[in-house]
Amino acid sequence: MVSTKVTFENILKAHERIKSSIHRTSIFQCSLLNQKSENENTRLFFKAENLQKIGAFKIRGVMNALLQSPSQLFTTHSSGNHAQALALGCQLTDKKAIIVMPKDSPAVKVNAVRDTYGAEIHFCEPTQQSREAACNDILNKYETDGIELIHPFDDARIVCGNGTVAIELLEDVDTKLDAVIIAVGGGGLLAGCVTAIRGMANMHSRYEGIKVIGAEPVMANDCWRSFYTNEKLHKAVNETPPKTIADSLKTNLGGITFPIIMENVDAIIQVTEDEIKRAMRLTIERTKLLIEPGAAVAVAAALSEEFSKKYPDCRNVGVVLCGGNIDLSTISGVID
Amino acid sequence: MVSTKVTFENILKAHERIKSSIHRTSIFQCSLLNQKSENENTRLFFKAENLQKIGAFKIRGVMNALLQSPSQLFTTHSSGNHAQALALGCQLTDKKAIIVMPKDSPAVKVNAVRDTYGAEIHFCEPTQQSREAACNDILNKYETDGIELIHPFDDARIVCGNGTVAIELLEDVDTKLDAVIIAVGGGGLLAGCVTAIRGMANMHSRYEGIKVIGAEPVMANDCWRSFYTNEKLHKAVNETPPKTIADSLKTNLGGITFPIIMENVDAIIQVTEDEIKRAMRLTIERTKLLIEPGAAVAVAAALSEEFSKKYPDCRNVGVVLCGGNIDLSTISGVID
Repeated sequence: MVSTKVTFENILKAHERIKSSIHRTSIFQCSLLNQKSENENTRLFFKAENLQKIGAFKIRGVMNALLQSPSQLFTTHSSGNHAQALALGCQLTDKKAIIVMPKDSPAVKVNAVRDTYGAEIHFCEPTQQSREAACNDILNKYETDGIELIHPFDDARIVCGNGTVAIELLEDVDTKLDAVIIAVGGGGLLAGCVTAIRGMANMHSRYEGIKVIGAEPVMANDCWRSFYTNEKLHKAVNETPPKTIADSLKTNLGGITFPIIMENVDAIIQVTEDEIKRAMRLTIERTKLLIEPGAAVAVAAALSEEFSKKYPDCRNVGVVLCGGNIDLSTISGVID
Repeated sequence: MVSTKVTFENILKAHERIKSSIHRTSIFQCSLLNQKSENENTRLFFKAENLQKIGAFKIRGVMNALLQSPSQLFTTHSSGNHAQALALGCQLTDKKAIIVMPKDSPAVKVNAVRDTYGAEIHFCEPTQQSREAACNDILNKYETDGIELIHPFDDARIVCGNGTVAIELLEDVDTKLDAVIIAVGGGGLLAGCVTAIRGMANMHSRYEGIKVIGAEPVMANDCWRSFYTNEKLHKAVNETPPKTIADSLKTNLGGITFPIIMENVDAIIQVTEDEIKRAMRLTIERTKLLIEPGAAVAVAAALSEEFSKKYPDCRNVGVVLCGGNIDLSTISGVID
């Protein structure tokens, strides 16, 4: 049965569907990072999706879509984690992926998609228009083969698959969480997780009243602006690309993810580039987990003064480390 | 009862003694690193002691010593992981540590020892003689207080505590291991682990015949030279300090560790600085686990041609990631 809506029931079904294909990633704690929180007695519980297959949560949504689809051929455009997720997902399910990647994509990502996961790559110019045009060309060319586009986040199957992160987080932390903080780019992870958390609250009182907070770079704050003005603001990404180091969070909210976030999320917290860098360095050096800047955004929000002032009673805080895909050659430049 | 000998029984007792004070670190696998092995079908199982408290296995031996000692005051000299282990161990057991550190120790380590773990630091000149002299001064000064020196590796309690790494590795890998590879500096980890592995073999046939292999930088190969010439070679560390990037492996074998290694270990494999750097980069980028160069030495040995040629039938290989303490500012310099 295809899950066409983002519901708690469909997230539970997604979890059953994908769990043998993914890692149930561990929860980590770090006493030093707890000490760095503004609020004394804060305990941070890190859900390490950087240790997930392909190094990011994205494999969850993709597997949920692939395992429900009769198609044998898939396409998408992505320079990042979604490309790797679709490539690996198709490899695991004996399906085929043709992926549009900007020709300036890092070699490490191109190699992973093509050589490690065996997908076909079509290169395009590094603009949003060029990516979409190339993807449309492929859709037209292979229409008779039943080719299917897998959108990186604005697809209910993807959102439900991503929501399984929160199911595991809540089940695996052995204490009652007061808040969960999740970075927001296109909003697929946040929308899925908040739906899961609200659903879990109906199942057990232990999961009631959890604050769900989106974390976003000031430099790519379309969600924050949308949330607090109650209307969807489209950034013209191609004209004024956000300059944040958190490259995986540069995308805009989608038509499916935005209303879910508006209705269910408690707050969006913005963090500066300096806060992201500091959180990234602290997290990597202290937890020994390699994270990408997008994951550091959630940590930065957890450590922020805004969070401690707004939610002084939130002591046990789940933080999703959404990914760990970063080129080591660039890491000193990112955090120094 | 104080364990005064390195025996399997004392390692089991050590495990009971320390296990509520330490993390039972996870085992990680990585398909891409398996592909990078010389031998097709190799499966590497990483024991992630970089995720251990203080970021290295050293807390195991120290806790085993502290929990058996009636002393309330301890000292050692160390610029690295042992200093952090003794500082945290004393914090956890309400004891006091006075630690001699070279005055050129990295600020991050000084801060951890003093500010995070609350030990007292005595700075000295960065030479072996100065370190030992300063340590002796402290021992004399606090003799009436019953101060006790905790050697970083040449102490049976330390070796037994370190051997618990192998107990967990063998228990937690769900397949029969053919080999286990462990980096060697002073030899405390290797001596403890090989004793544990030989003891496990007597308990269950599943643990029989495991090859135990030490891994060492060519640039600090006192163990390799000692092993293959059957005599202990003392490097005059102070006069010709090894230049390897694997700073935690620069020490010489000890009087306790050397005979255990000679008698029980199957081989010592040397790796070059380039092999260490490549292994370090691959491991961090692909597993998303931050490791220090000393840990990369074991990975490099597992990926080496020498290992695959010498042990072509060793497919399931345990690799101990002994630590993850590295300053991120220096990481590009280390691996580029």
